Amino acid sequence: MNEVVFTRDAGAEVGRRLKEVLPRDVFVLADGHSQSCCMERLGLERIPEAQRITLAAGEESKSLENAARIWSMLSERKARRNSVLLNVGGGMITDIGGFAASCFKRGIRFLNVPTTLLAQVDASAGGKTGINFGGLKNEVGTFAFPEAVVIDNGFLASLPERQRLSGFAEMLKHALLADEEHLAKVMGADAAQAETEGFLSLIRESVAVKAAIVQQDPREKGLRKALNFGHTVGHAIESAALGRKTEVFHGEAVAYGLIAELFLSVRKTGFDGKRYEAVRTFIRDRYPACPAVGEPEELYERMLHDKKNEREGVNFTLLRRPGEIETDRYCGREEILEALQQI
Amino acid sequence: MNEVVFTRDAGAEVGRRLKEVLPRDVFVLADGHSQSCCMERLGLERIPEAQRITLAAGEESKSLENAARIWSMLSERKARRNSVLLNVGGGMITDIGGFAASCFKRGIRFLNVPTTLLAQVDASAGGKTGINFGGLKNEVGTFAFPEAVVIDNGFLASLPERQRLSGFAEMLKHALLADEEHLAKVMGADAAQAETEGFLSLIRESVAVKAAIVQQDPREKGLRKALNFGHTVGHAIESAALGRKTEVFHGEAVAYGLIAELFLSVRKTGFDGKRYEAVRTFIRDRYPACPAVGEPEELYERMLHDKKNEREGVNFTLLRRPGEIETDRYCGREEILEALQQI
Repeated sequence: MNEVVFTRDAGAEVGRRLKEVLPRDVFVLADGHSQSCCMERLGLERIPEAQRITLAAGEESKSLENAARIWSMLSERKARRNSVLLNVGGGMITDIGGFAASCFKRGIRFLNVPTTLLAQVDASAGGKTGINFGGLKNEVGTFAFPEAVVIDNGFLASLPERQRLSGFAEMLKHALLADEEHLAKVMGADAAQAETEGFLSLIRESVAVKAAIVQQDPREKGLRKALNFGHTVGHAIESAALGRKTEVFHGEAVAYGLIAELFLSVRKTGFDGKRYEAVRTFIRDRYPACPAVGEPEELYERMLHDKKNEREGVNFTLLRRPGEIETDRYCGREEILEALQQI
Repeated sequence: MNEVVFTRDAGAEVGRRLKEVLPRDVFVLADGHSQSCCMERLGLERIPEAQRITLAAGEESKSLENAARIWSMLSERKARRNSVLLNVGGGMITDIGGFAASCFKRGIRFLNVPTTLLAQVDASAGGKTGINFGGLKNEVGTFAFPEAVVIDNGFLASLPERQRLSGFAEMLKHALLADEEHLAKVMGADAAQAETEGFLSLIRESVAVKAAIVQQDPREKGLRKALNFGHTVGHAIESAALGRKTEVFHGEAVAYGLIAELFLSVRKTGFDGKRYEAVRTFIRDRYPACPAVGEPEELYERMLHDKKNEREGVNFTLLRRPGEIETDRYCGREEILEALQQI
């Protein structure tokens, strides 16, 4: 597992870690947002322009072509085993940057500085790197841990509200996987305050939930499926939206997915109905109404296709109560359709 | 470390390992030579044509474009975590195939079936995968172990003499890194017999030498440099030859490199002069005369450049005697030039 550092001064933290690295050995990868809003906070003026790449924001940038651009920069500037790639941005940047670093000369060091709430609570822990290939997400990638992940929620001051809520949905998921106490804290929090000092400890606790699960199952053989809670439905919504060019943020889709999968948990694993209603209301009060990206039947078909099931029905991660997880729970077509109607 | 199996019947061995894998989950990568000379021995008729790729023989095929071709095939045919890529060919094939497999969906299984003597003794152990990028060898790659390496020297029956000798030079290097006894055996052997049953045990012993070194230093932090014996000079010869379009096989360059680096060992670390003469004669009797690929000064400059040294002189792995290794021994310009004149 990688070290995760929580700080209010990413510049000092990164500076400390790069103190003994020559400027010629530091490379910086950013996206449009992080390039314009976050670089000043990091104080990287000494790094030559030729050692920086900025990718356009968005999933389309997570391509083999851009990985090759990063390799070309590293190769042309003679990066070596003790060089460091600094990945500054959202999950797209930490994914592709981690992939490029883990394959360059069979692996150079990399530091992740996530600058969105989603990347801070989700994409920077877990040792997964990847690029999209052949139209499929993360089809090519590696398991590789950054030297450290530096989380500074001061970066979030410039983050638009929808992006905040997108990250907040993963925090809600982590809270449901953790316990009553953590869930109460997250449901008492306000994503509008994400950049405040008080919120940083909530991010820390959220990352700890994921880290504990990943640590027990680093290669995703079993327990790690818990992290898919809300995502089976969420992915179906995302892929339906993609087909329609409707923009749905990842965390929004997860939030809707949580409603449906908690409903299934009420039906199948005895999750408390009142608590389900409370979480559903919490989500509906905060998130835009789920766009009409598809009738329940379409979403159901997408789930079937996604899981390559050869029978009817889909396996889900469900909850008995907050913190009590059941993976691989089979749900039938009618139950799933009913759950999708709750969104 | 991966399992290495020595066999006289690769077809049966591979068949046994794939017994529980569906044909739709088996993918085959080959080169021109292995495609025409080795496939029959493997009995892979049941694998559909769309699950096979044959690359043209030669280093130029070890490219990102070809890695992407492999990923496209795997993706289009819906390879999944329990799919297997079978790499059948020389070191180029096991390198690029291992790289592609280790990155597809963050790693699927792969089996290496090396079909040249060089790949059998060298490229298939060690957990290194890679492709060439930006004109540099193995600039992009991973550390990843195949599920197993299946070594069947029956494949060598169709191998031309120069290719046999190329692999044999790595066996000689391993013998020098091992001990007197193994060295005597290798110097008493004949590469023309490489496909015979008796030779298989010699291959097995040679692989064991490398495996023991790799096991002690899987990430190439120290001891593994021992495997570079003969290669500092060898690489300079190869890159000089490349500049001139003269064809020098890797093992030929290593054989010449062994002469020069043994000479340095006589001078710097007390390697026995008579034994050095015996090895030099052994090499000169078997290998074509070293082509005039460069004056000693040019080779020396290439070594300096390769090591990115900022001072005069180069560090070598040297021997005190067979099996007694000293890494990072500094040699000055004049000593190196004299050693190069011995080739």
